[in-house]
Amino acid sequence: MDNFQFYSPTQFLFGKDAETQAGACVRRHGGTRVLLHYGGGSAERSGLLERVRRSLRESDLPFVELGGVQPNPRAELVYEGIRLCREEGIDFILSVGGGSVIDSSKAIAAGVPYDGDFWDFFCATPIDAALPVGTVLTIAAAGSEGSGDMVISKGTWKRGAGSDHLRPRFSVLNPALTCTLPAYQTACGATDIMAHVFERYFTRTPEVEITDRLCEAVLLTMIRETPRVIADPACYDARANIMWAGTVAHTNICGVGRAQDWNSHGIEHELSALYDCAHGAGLAVIMPAWMEFVCPQGVERFAQAAVRVWGCQMDFAHPERTAMEGIRRFRQFLHSIGMPVNFAELGAREEDVDTLVENFGLGSGRTGGFAALSSEDVREILHIAVHAHL
Amino acid sequence: MDNFQFYSPTQFLFGKDAETQAGACVRRHGGTRVLLHYGGGSAERSGLLERVRRSLRESDLPFVELGGVQPNPRAELVYEGIRLCREEGIDFILSVGGGSVIDSSKAIAAGVPYDGDFWDFFCATPIDAALPVGTVLTIAAAGSEGSGDMVISKGTWKRGAGSDHLRPRFSVLNPALTCTLPAYQTACGATDIMAHVFERYFTRTPEVEITDRLCEAVLLTMIRETPRVIADPACYDARANIMWAGTVAHTNICGVGRAQDWNSHGIEHELSALYDCAHGAGLAVIMPAWMEFVCPQGVERFAQAAVRVWGCQMDFAHPERTAMEGIRRFRQFLHSIGMPVNFAELGAREEDVDTLVENFGLGSGRTGGFAALSSEDVREILHIAVHAHL
Repeated sequence: MDNFQFYSPTQFLFGKDAETQAGACVRRHGGTRVLLHYGGGSAERSGLLERVRRSLRESDLPFVELGGVQPNPRAELVYEGIRLCREEGIDFILSVGGGSVIDSSKAIAAGVPYDGDFWDFFCATPIDAALPVGTVLTIAAAGSEGSGDMVISKGTWKRGAGSDHLRPRFSVLNPALTCTLPAYQTACGATDIMAHVFERYFTRTPEVEITDRLCEAVLLTMIRETPRVIADPACYDARANIMWAGTVAHTNICGVGRAQDWNSHGIEHELSALYDCAHGAGLAVIMPAWMEFVCPQGVERFAQAAVRVWGCQMDFAHPERTAMEGIRRFRQFLHSIGMPVNFAELGAREEDVDTLVENFGLGSGRTGGFAALSSEDVREILHIAVHAHL
Repeated sequence: MDNFQFYSPTQFLFGKDAETQAGACVRRHGGTRVLLHYGGGSAERSGLLERVRRSLRESDLPFVELGGVQPNPRAELVYEGIRLCREEGIDFILSVGGGSVIDSSKAIAAGVPYDGDFWDFFCATPIDAALPVGTVLTIAAAGSEGSGDMVISKGTWKRGAGSDHLRPRFSVLNPALTCTLPAYQTACGATDIMAHVFERYFTRTPEVEITDRLCEAVLLTMIRETPRVIADPACYDARANIMWAGTVAHTNICGVGRAQDWNSHGIEHELSALYDCAHGAGLAVIMPAWMEFVCPQGVERFAQAAVRVWGCQMDFAHPERTAMEGIRRFRQFLHSIGMPVNFAELGAREEDVDTLVENFGLGSGRTGGFAALSSEDVREILHIAVHAHL
């Protein structure tokens, strides 16, 4: 096991009607003047935003609003948020939405106390300070409600950055808010959650049994609960298990003490940057393709996943068959919850493969903690994704 | 799943030589004048205390020392610590030791800003404030390095109390520090860790798959790693997995969203109060006895544990046989790591059963989230523990 630091100071309030405590939480965590940041119309139409506004008023908290965050959130709105926060003397940002809204909030939070262009943070400038952020989560997916990470798009770039300063001070998780999500978005979120675990699971760091087992705990939960909510969207208990699993998947408690490999996320970011497709859907196409490609470089770990996560019988004479059977079951699972499994189903095009490889930007370098990929390897993974089938 | 709050703001620094960062951590978390609190001579003899003192000096942190914490830590030393902190204007307590030292530190931390007798906290007075505490952990067991709980003994009482205000600001976890622990202490710690999970696992709250799976993750890790360190005490990686498992077991991430049942801990406290035996050894005798007694009231949950944790084949026609086989394997496991399995092996006496029941203090009441025990039930559990065998 590698040395590590783990710091997850977010206060989680989980359960029915939890959003009514948002104002009190802002107060408890020192906020006095709030930016209320959100996305499109669904939070308004459902009445959620109005309940949050009421909660802020009940705590005598003045607030200004900034809506309009899009999926794959854009730098333009971040600049606007930074300007607004400075003008209005904001000292706390409250996000109401999913990962896109929370990430947009984090970028604003980091940008406000920073003298330069906030985009510097996405070009390796470390984040030394940020306004405090709180969240009211509306979809189980990105895990941003418990992480120090954010992903922002600017032009054709889609980039990530992170710092413990960005970990939300509190996050309000009410699974009932997710009961009205369409099946497709639910499945995209579930895929993202599972991907967050797999990116940590496939490692060459030996002797990380506790984090292996925690990863498997989240995956087994997702495999059980996701089909339940696809069949019965209003099933509160399944929504609750998925929502908490999504948070646990990405605080990094499943990833400490080990090298990780985020190449599936990295390659997917090029897909969603080019096609503006849902991140989870892109992952459903890319991640099994990545697995098939790298599996021969670490059969024993894929066999472990196949047995412990996918319930395969171990073929002791041919571990590689067990390993590949696990990947097959993953793709089958993704299909069963309505996810695309190849380029065509995603709406991606084979003729864009070269562009995607170029945008990934490896040049003649290599990247990856489990398998060090070259540009040629990325091309091959994309070709597997083009032609994948059940 | 029940509504819950989860708040674990402790910063964990995990790995080799992590204790050299103790001083910098105190500074980062606002300490300027430190009480260095510890137990007996082993931390001194090993050179650990000197390394911690050096780290404090390197951070220009003045400190006063209070050693002498005993296993089953006593109120007398807590009173002394509170007086010392007030006299010396201490604003941060740094614990170097195991659960006893950390619990003693927490009690001092809560007592300093409190006007009354700190023992009030163990008689239902809520804890509204506390000095910040940091820890350098020397044994994987109590989980106090990541929890808001403490247990203190006064006279023949041994009582627990807790508050999120008591969660350490940081905890330094260096598994190498545990490589010299005797096998018996190691096994007692492992038993305590597993008990912390089982007390959360046995619940009547339905639909808590994510926390079930997280509990199982910790248990499976302990079942794999504990025999390795008993056979090879210096095995760093096994020590590392156990140390982090011990923390995860007790931050309450394994217990949120569900009713818990801490009767095994409660009954054991009477044993260690009466005999001053090791807490883990007492649990090894009490917990399987509690399980045998309550199993008929929740066979399906015990069968789940047997299959998922102990690797039993499910007997679908006779689930109760599977359930009991799991308990049998637990006791067998405890024996295999050198733990006592009955009163005689613990050094307890059958003729004290009435005293133990009386001290448990149920009177004509009942207690327990999974099985509501009467005094008569507690007596029966103790009698199972008297006569238990492999």
